[in-house]
Amino acid sequence: MTSTERPSWGEDWGIAVRVWVERAGQSILGPGRLELLDGIDRHHSISAAARQLGMSYRRAWELVQSINEAAGEPLVTATTGGVQGGGAQLTPLGRWAIGVFREAQAHLQQA
Amino acid sequence: MTSTERPSWGEDWGIAVRVWVERAGQSILGPGRLELLDGIDRHHSISAAARQLGMSYRRAWELVQSINEAAGEPLVTATTGGVQGGGAQLTPLGRWAIGVFREAQAHLQQA
Repeated sequence: MTSTERPSWGEDWGIAVRVWVERAGQSILGPGRLELLDGIDRHHSISAAARQLGMSYRRAWELVQSINEAAGEPLVTATTGGVQGGGAQLTPLGRWAIGVFREAQAHLQQA
Repeated sequence: MTSTERPSWGEDWGIAVRVWVERAGQSILGPGRLELLDGIDRHHSISAAARQLGMSYRRAWELVQSINEAAGEPLVTATTGGVQGGGAQLTPLGRWAIGVFREAQAHLQQA
């Protein structure tokens, strides 16, 4: 049997691909974290982004810490309190990392 | 800042890609399992393949079970005992799945 025959490759078989941005072998940004950063960018709020994703604020906050630590410098900055009640936003590096991730993902989807 | 500028993308940043063969959303064969199946194909023995990879026989055996269960039918068959002391080999489906995985991996490496 050659590799071009398909003995029993049913419709439920497939090739899966995952792409992520990493630094020094540590994942910074994959599909799940991208959703969180997108939400933060949209709502300027970690808690609003978390709510949208059905995620606890604590979990979202921990993810942001992990992302920032893995990147070596912040992709998200957050302030608490103040007149506006705090807020969060992407840094230029964060915005750029998202762009790189999306380009890589689109490139691989074509391939 | 546009996404073409690179605020601080050091040499230790990169894009990582993982590809695997899945069935019904469950992973059958990724890079690690490929090594095990390659070893089984080379040595016709799960224990020899495990030894080569510095893996316990028990772990290798469990991986083979997981692979076969995820695939819905065996990619590896093993016999125990007998004059030859048992042995293991890839099924045609196993050989074919490896080929598909390698093709996908090569395709993505080009992209």
